[in-house]
Amino acid sequence: MIHYDPHHWWRHLLKLRGGILKEIVGRLGVFTAWAAAVVWFHQHVFKVDVPATGHTLAGTVLSLLLVFRTNSSYDRFWEGRKLWGGVVNETRNLVRVAALNIPSLELVRRLTAWTAVYPYALTRVLRSGGDDLGPAAAVLPRAEINQVLNARNAGIAVAMRISAILVEARRGGLISDIVQMEIDRNVQLLIDYQGGCERIVRTPMPFAYMLHLRRTLFLFILGLPFALVEPFGWAAVPVILLIAHTFLGIEEIGVEIEDPFGTEENDLPLEDIAGGIARILDDLVPWTNQVIESPALSYPGIAAPKEPPPVA
Amino acid sequence: MIHYDPHHWWRHLLKLRGGILKEIVGRLGVFTAWAAAVVWFHQHVFKVDVPATGHTLAGTVLSLLLVFRTNSSYDRFWEGRKLWGGVVNETRNLVRVAALNIPSLELVRRLTAWTAVYPYALTRVLRSGGDDLGPAAAVLPRAEINQVLNARNAGIAVAMRISAILVEARRGGLISDIVQMEIDRNVQLLIDYQGGCERIVRTPMPFAYMLHLRRTLFLFILGLPFALVEPFGWAAVPVILLIAHTFLGIEEIGVEIEDPFGTEENDLPLEDIAGGIARILDDLVPWTNQVIESPALSYPGIAAPKEPPPVA
Amino acid sequence: MIHYDPHHWWRHLLKLRGGILKEIVGRLGVFTAWAAAVVWFHQHVFKVDVPATGHTLAGTVLSLLLVFRTNSSYDRFWEGRKLWGGVVNETRNLVRVAALNIPSLELVRRLTAWTAVYPYALTRVLRSGGDDLGPAAAVLPRAEINQVLNARNAGIAVAMRISAILVEARRGGLISDIVQMEIDRNVQLLIDYQGGCERIVRTPMPFAYMLHLRRTLFLFILGLPFALVEPFGWAAVPVILLIAHTFLGIEEIGVEIEDPFGTEENDLPLEDIAGGIARILDDLVPWTNQVIESPALSYPGIAAPKEPPPVA
Amino acid sequence: MIHYDPHHWWRHLLKLRGGILKEIVGRLGVFTAWAAAVVWFHQHVFKVDVPATGHTLAGTVLSLLLVFRTNSSYDRFWEGRKLWGGVVNETRNLVRVAALNIPSLELVRRLTAWTAVYPYALTRVLRSGGDDLGPAAAVLPRAEINQVLNARNAGIAVAMRISAILVEARRGGLISDIVQMEIDRNVQLLIDYQGGCERIVRTPMPFAYMLHLRRTLFLFILGLPFALVEPFGWAAVPVILLIAHTFLGIEEIGVEIEDPFGTEENDLPLEDIAGGIARILDDLVPWTNQVIESPALSYPGIAAPKEPPPVA
Amino acid sequence: MIHYDPHHWWRHLLKLRGGILKEIVGRLGVFTAWAAAVVWFHQHVFKVDVPATGHTLAGTVLSLLLVFRTNSSYDRFWEGRKLWGGVVNETRNLVRVAALNIPSLELVRRLTAWTAVYPYALTRVLRSGGDDLGPAAAVLPRAEINQVLNARNAGIAVAMRISAILVEARRGGLISDIVQMEIDRNVQLLIDYQGGCERIVRTPMPFAYMLHLRRTLFLFILGLPFALVEPFGWAAVPVILLIAHTFLGIEEIGVEIEDPFGTEENDLPLEDIAGGIARILDDLVPWTNQVIESPALSYPGIAAPKEPPPVA
Repeated sequence: MIHYDPHHWWRHLLKLRGGILKEIVGRLGVFTAWAAAVVWFHQHVFKVDVPATGHTLAGTVLSLLLVFRTNSSYDRFWEGRKLWGGVVNETRNLVRVAALNIPSLELVRRLTAWTAVYPYALTRVLRSGGDDLGPAAAVLPRAEINQVLNARNAGIAVAMRISAILVEARRGGLISDIVQMEIDRNVQLLIDYQGGCERIVRTPMPFAYMLHLRRTLFLFILGLPFALVEPFGWAAVPVILLIAHTFLGIEEIGVEIEDPFGTEENDLPLEDIAGGIARILDDLVPWTNQVIESPALSYPGIAAPKEPPPVA
Repeated sequence: MIHYDPHHWWRHLLKLRGGILKEIVGRLGVFTAWAAAVVWFHQHVFKVDVPATGHTLAGTVLSLLLVFRTNSSYDRFWEGRKLWGGVVNETRNLVRVAALNIPSLELVRRLTAWTAVYPYALTRVLRSGGDDLGPAAAVLPRAEINQVLNARNAGIAVAMRISAILVEARRGGLISDIVQMEIDRNVQLLIDYQGGCERIVRTPMPFAYMLHLRRTLFLFILGLPFALVEPFGWAAVPVILLIAHTFLGIEEIGVEIEDPFGTEENDLPLEDIAGGIARILDDLVPWTNQVIESPALSYPGIAAPKEPPPVA
Repeated sequence: MIHYDPHHWWRHLLKLRGGILKEIVGRLGVFTAWAAAVVWFHQHVFKVDVPATGHTLAGTVLSLLLVFRTNSSYDRFWEGRKLWGGVVNETRNLVRVAALNIPSLELVRRLTAWTAVYPYALTRVLRSGGDDLGPAAAVLPRAEINQVLNARNAGIAVAMRISAILVEARRGGLISDIVQMEIDRNVQLLIDYQGGCERIVRTPMPFAYMLHLRRTLFLFILGLPFALVEPFGWAAVPVILLIAHTFLGIEEIGVEIEDPFGTEENDLPLEDIAGGIARILDDLVPWTNQVIESPALSYPGIAAPKEPPPVA
Repeated sequence: MIHYDPHHWWRHLLKLRGGILKEIVGRLGVFTAWAAAVVWFHQHVFKVDVPATGHTLAGTVLSLLLVFRTNSSYDRFWEGRKLWGGVVNETRNLVRVAALNIPSLELVRRLTAWTAVYPYALTRVLRSGGDDLGPAAAVLPRAEINQVLNARNAGIAVAMRISAILVEARRGGLISDIVQMEIDRNVQLLIDYQGGCERIVRTPMPFAYMLHLRRTLFLFILGLPFALVEPFGWAAVPVILLIAHTFLGIEEIGVEIEDPFGTEENDLPLEDIAGGIARILDDLVPWTNQVIESPALSYPGIAAPKEPPPVA
Repeated sequence: MIHYDPHHWWRHLLKLRGGILKEIVGRLGVFTAWAAAVVWFHQHVFKVDVPATGHTLAGTVLSLLLVFRTNSSYDRFWEGRKLWGGVVNETRNLVRVAALNIPSLELVRRLTAWTAVYPYALTRVLRSGGDDLGPAAAVLPRAEINQVLNARNAGIAVAMRISAILVEARRGGLISDIVQMEIDRNVQLLIDYQGGCERIVRTPMPFAYMLHLRRTLFLFILGLPFALVEPFGWAAVPVILLIAHTFLGIEEIGVEIEDPFGTEENDLPLEDIAGGIARILDDLVPWTNQVIESPALSYPGIAAPKEPPPVA
């Protein structure tokens, strides 16, 4: 994600980085060349001009569809940000309530460290890879971290660890079942937010929607030179370039922000958010420079994974 | 659902599969023939041209209605996806909390297997049929699976099974009522999501809305040749084809994605999602290659269904 | 509600039933006659033509307002459907949890029967009348059903019955207060959904909004003949008919679906939904062909209604 | 709020009451006079006409901004209605659960009477005044009602009364803490809804948004005579009047429904809703014609207000 | 935030304060000068006019994008207001339930004072600074206030204080775990709302969206003189000024209200809201002019911050 001050108006106008110009420059070149060819053909070979009425009639509906699509993408971007905001909130709440209610420094430290690992595990799930589980992974037993990395879904594996600590605390008589269930709701919310993120990653705009929009856009721009050649002459070429820039740029923004969990310039800064969570949690319950022992997770039916499954 | 990379712009433009072209090609043919007929009549028999002012005035409101309708359909598509995302989340949460809190391998395995059956049962409900209850059905007693297939609503029947296991655990003193109710909330959410999906399947756009939109679209395109014949001549025919393609295509997208639970190309991949749930649950609590005994469901008032009711 | 297959495009175009044509045909007649009168006056008495610029400038904002209004109505329609979907979900959940956790066949049967009555009672509230409380009313004591029909709000009266059974179960030591409160939350949700439906029924679009939209629409169409008479001649009459059909039809859709709980063709099929609920509940806990005894509701402060109050 | 039947189309067209005509008639007069002056100047003194291209280009964005603003106001209106719908629901739920679970007629009557007071107290808060606390205030001790009227926030003061009765019931061993907390959640929701209403009352549209919209609207209409004088002649005056009526009317609707809790014609009927709540509650637990004794509210830290604070 | 009465139409039209004119006046100057230069060049050096068709075709989509962007900003503004409304609600609920259920004047006073500090601490977080923790900070021990000011996140530090008081009350046998958890949910909500506010502050509109919108706007206005010079002559200069004012103003509103937590004229009045909360809480449980002793916060793993961390 690119941080910028929106109050500066002129400063960004010429920037390439973060913009969509480099993505659409090929398309602009094709359509500009086509426009030039049509104008030349019209002026030297055969009149091919038509009135602009067709473009006027189709232009409104195309504009609406285009802007709605870009806004649907923005909604996905913003929903993704909200879900990560939820991860920020629930990790804070989890450690806040646990730290104050579980009277065992050892358990609270372990819970905090695993909670700090969670956002990194989620990043791994959303990007289908990445072995960095953050600073807290360094203080947790290596074998357990490997178990998480080997799990089919690293996020759920970490959530199991957190919930298991709560079970341990209740079985040890440190907290009541009321308190355990109340804290566990935060783990439940983390799983919910994770599922929301996975949904965004795995569900693109319906193919038919994307295809019809692009095809209509393609035909619309392809037809522009015929409508503009007579009134504009050679000036039709730069005018068509500008119109194509406007329309194709809006479409490209929709593509750029549709899946906000990647590593491109307009994506969300997942590592920064995960790092911020780790720092806040360390401020609440310091776990850095600690060696944390964590007993084997044992619950009915658990078994060592049969083979190292792929991230999916 | 068709997976595609939206960053490739040119690749999909000529694809037929997944697009709406094959759906609307008949309508396009009718309107193109009509346009050609009107142009011929105008040029050889009698002048029938009118100005385009009427189309300009009605075009904006028609465009707005059309794009709003398509967006309402997209909202239904996305809501359907969210509901299935909820099914993903709650099945995970159900097994996560149950596995850690119920100290009985046998009960946890049974609960996990029935939870893995649930998404398939939901698919059966939404598609009004289909006997595949997924891999977990193979390890559960055949009689019980048949009971689910015979139930009026397979999803509720499976939910009863899951809740009954929780009751069993509480009556056996394995969990408190607090923990039982907390886990049961996930079952409640599954029923809520199921109801949401059934609502989408059973409630089309209001008939009056659909009908007026189509009728207006029909009259709009029918009138186009009269408005375009004089300024465009024979060029009116391809121009009308392109305008009709734009408008009819947007309307058709709305139809395609309005009910996202079917088996068409732009529908949601329910089997893939159900299979993914089963794999995740098997990673948490392996149930494959197990024989799971499940006692008869007995609760006050239960009775064998009087006749095998139809799926409804 | 009219069920239809949206994939059939041509089939519905000529249908009268369910459409809005019969509602707006009077208005169309008035405006068409007016258009013909203006054209005749212009051609035989006095030139009254003006340019169309005014209509172009006002047309966009009028189109936007119109489509937004219709979409607000659709949002109400869809919210109403969601609320009834919630009734479907919570009646299912109510009986599911109660049947499995209350170890008394007699209480569970009574609870199920009253739950099956609820959607009919809600229908009675929303339509301000109707004495049909569904099939379950036949197995419940007549005096109690009459008490519900005499209550100021039949829905709340039935909800009281359901909650009272839960109190009875807890006082009899059959369930804990935890379980009672958890089940009662479903009753709370039913009351919430009922309130949502009542809100939609009792709150029309703000009068000023409706009035200004119609007045502007009226003046816009009234002015059309002056703008179209010169370029179109007598062709202005059918063109104005078509434009009026487009605009008035969109407005009428908004009226039709604004209150979706009535008994018109585009309203929600409340009886069908209520019947479906009853069938599902009967599948879970058969109550048909049972005689259910239900003791008098007695809670602090209850009293016989002083007079049979009107439905409100 | 004005109740009307939207199915009657012609009936309301000429009504003044409830419409926005009387609000904007001054502005219409100013702009019409200005239009007439410009036309006269153009025809007798100096040609001042320009083409309409500027208005066409700016008209679309102005129309969009205008309709979006009106819709934001409608969203506030509808959110306000939803919040009051929530008050309806939660007062019903509060009395429903309390009446069935608290085995003390005296406590239940007191709780019901205070709950019936709540909507009136909320109305007092939203309108910054009004001493009517409804029919239930007549059966409650006058001193306590005065304490509510003297409180900085009458709504919270009543909510304290209701919650205090629940505490009393729990301390007296009549209900468990589980039941107490469950019922108290309804009080929590009442406070939430109240906060939502206060937010709407105290937060107008951002000043910059309102100002830019009006200024642009002002300049747009001011410029209209120059664009229309040449093609329309004196007909420009009524045409400008109609266009100004369309645009200014839409803006005025936004103003009218932005704060729906006032006492104007298009505001919500708060007294009617509050009265309806009181009647329903009286049907559940009759409190009319009762003398209700209510002990002094005593909780840690309570103190008599130092001075009678203003409503804020 | 500027309070104003939207019913006064003429009063605000000439105001500079709170409007966006002073922000965009530089841009307007540049574009006006450019327009004048093009007109002069066209009339004295070389004809550079083109038809306006290009602007018409691109104008619709640009208008849509612009208004959607401004509305997304308004949605952020309104979401921010809702989140602060939530802070208002939950602080009220927190003190309401605590005051009635915790039988210890000393604990309730301390809890109330810390709750009154919370909104100020949140303001400090959102504005990355500010040492004012409000009137309640004066009655709390200076050392503890300093600890909050030194914490990485002042809001969470205060929330820890509040939750710790609840733990103290439960450990002292004053409340059950049920009541403690129920009250603590309000603290959890405060943390959730805080996270929502932080999300808005830290996530601007995607850079690509902002950049493409501005670049397109820039090119659109830059091209206007060529399209308007021939039909308008020197009148093109004021017309372009007005069009630029319309478009640039809408864009600027989006910038102004995108981050509503600052200290600019159109931002939310955070201090006023925080002050209002403090007054209401003081009305419930007077804490002013009290000396409140608060024991050191001690929970497992807590440690003195290693260095005074920056606000982040």
